[in-house]
Amino acid sequence: MILAIDGMGGDHAPKSTVKGAVDAVKEYGITVMITGDQEVLSKELQQYDYDKEKIEIIHCSEKIENEDPPVKAIRRKKDSSMVVALNLVKEGRAEAVISAGNTGALLAGGLFVLGRIKGIDRPALAPVFPHENGASVLIDGGANTECKGKNLLQFGVMGSLYSEHILGVKSPKVSLVNVGEEKGKGNELTKEAYDLLEESDLNFTGNMEARDLPRGKTDVIVCDGFTGNIILKLTEGVFMTVFDLLKEKFTKSFMTKMAAGILKPELRQIKKDYDYTEHGGAPFLGVQGVLIKAHGSSDGKAVKNALRQGKRFAENKIVDKIQESLGN
Amino acid sequence: MILAIDGMGGDHAPKSTVKGAVDAVKEYGITVMITGDQEVLSKELQQYDYDKEKIEIIHCSEKIENEDPPVKAIRRKKDSSMVVALNLVKEGRAEAVISAGNTGALLAGGLFVLGRIKGIDRPALAPVFPHENGASVLIDGGANTECKGKNLLQFGVMGSLYSEHILGVKSPKVSLVNVGEEKGKGNELTKEAYDLLEESDLNFTGNMEARDLPRGKTDVIVCDGFTGNIILKLTEGVFMTVFDLLKEKFTKSFMTKMAAGILKPELRQIKKDYDYTEHGGAPFLGVQGVLIKAHGSSDGKAVKNALRQGKRFAENKIVDKIQESLGN
Repeated sequence: MILAIDGMGGDHAPKSTVKGAVDAVKEYGITVMITGDQEVLSKELQQYDYDKEKIEIIHCSEKIENEDPPVKAIRRKKDSSMVVALNLVKEGRAEAVISAGNTGALLAGGLFVLGRIKGIDRPALAPVFPHENGASVLIDGGANTECKGKNLLQFGVMGSLYSEHILGVKSPKVSLVNVGEEKGKGNELTKEAYDLLEESDLNFTGNMEARDLPRGKTDVIVCDGFTGNIILKLTEGVFMTVFDLLKEKFTKSFMTKMAAGILKPELRQIKKDYDYTEHGGAPFLGVQGVLIKAHGSSDGKAVKNALRQGKRFAENKIVDKIQESLGN
Repeated sequence: MILAIDGMGGDHAPKSTVKGAVDAVKEYGITVMITGDQEVLSKELQQYDYDKEKIEIIHCSEKIENEDPPVKAIRRKKDSSMVVALNLVKEGRAEAVISAGNTGALLAGGLFVLGRIKGIDRPALAPVFPHENGASVLIDGGANTECKGKNLLQFGVMGSLYSEHILGVKSPKVSLVNVGEEKGKGNELTKEAYDLLEESDLNFTGNMEARDLPRGKTDVIVCDGFTGNIILKLTEGVFMTVFDLLKEKFTKSFMTKMAAGILKPELRQIKKDYDYTEHGGAPFLGVQGVLIKAHGSSDGKAVKNALRQGKRFAENKIVDKIQESLGN
């Protein structure tokens, strides 16, 4: 299986992308096409011992920066590492594409280069949301700040297929984020979405209050992209704040330092379990191809994990499954 | 100063409301009118030693239940403890009203009985949001799930007055919850609200991502009531989950139990600092009178705190200040 990676995308590229590609090739037996400046990438690659047949550099002259306006960047920088990587999937030369670059540009690129699946009005980001007993799929994680009820229904369909075929959950529970559990609660959007989800073939379990999200009572968390962004970032912020406070309190005296030392491995484990960046990238579901958005701060390991995720999505033919479920 | 309390409202009423009233009378030198069943309330009151001149029971024959549909309950149960308490403020017999009863009914009652301040289209709930360095005011905490830009501007005005006159913050920083920090980010609502807040006389500091909310970088957090509900409940949920996880991990072995024992007071302090129910009730700002919504699970102490809060709002003539700021 051949996967493409935007070699210049991400805060730590090309170090992270090259390292991730080399390790993924070794561990998953895939072939990787890495896009970017030939000279820069070759130099990075020279550090490693790897099967030369399995990594190919696709040279390009441009790079999309984090500050670039997304749509303009995709339209103008045709020879950027991101656009070239997307084209590899469009042309059928690679089965999935991974990028840790400018999120807005990548989503715009997904829409313009790959195009939407027929029947999906708004493709959506589907990161995992870690919880007590594992992880749910959250969709939309931030691609669409303005949504209609039918978009949320489609998010539910795509999220359910992801949960079932990639995470192995049988008949995934799909829940709608809302301000109360009873039907009829919420704003116009959630009321409309509730009715559509209820009428669908999904295993829709109704509304879920934000309080219960970290409890892991559901498999697929459906919300608009504005709400999804708030949920992901607030969870991260509260976690970071609690751990900073613990650190502060625990270093107050000799005794508390001693005690904290004993508990350190436990604390580290909790932190790790809940760090959504540890869970690889977020697929952009609803476009005609497998596209994985890796976190901007991804290191080599995160890039490797995103490649593994891309491989799984491609193997499981998730795009075909979305098409089938829509009767295309 | 005379304050009214819905004697039958809340999960622990009338025990909590009577205890709270008795303690508030002693500590704050106020007079309390408590509404509800004369017989039930008298019986509760008999347990305490207090100044008989300072607590008056206003008998009423009905009670609004948590399951009652809000608007219908307010319209039909005219002799309920909640409606009678609201009327005490409307008639000028009390300067503030506190209730821990059915939230929806209380908000509807605030609108119907007290009425809106001229120039405020949507009154809003303004709970405090605890953070590292104290607490911000969050507005709207859940009264309006559907908002327009001008509503958010008015929330900013009311929240700023609250922060300045009740919490003593000079020139409070007002921030808009959004998916990115730059101007132009977000959905139609936040874009519209951004422009209005920027043009206003408020100390508007721009957008704030949800990640930064627990960091306490702002004094007034402005958002629609749907988003406000998500923020409050998710923060609560993540906190509770982290503490449950800590408890679980810390009781794994003899050593971790010992260590956790030493750290217990610190953990308890963090938990308490961040528990927004500890910070009293949430004022419903924008109605013609001081109305404090206490948490449904309020005990005597929480009711007492809510009464103190009502007293402060009344003393500081917050309703007049909102009117003045609108040029009424």
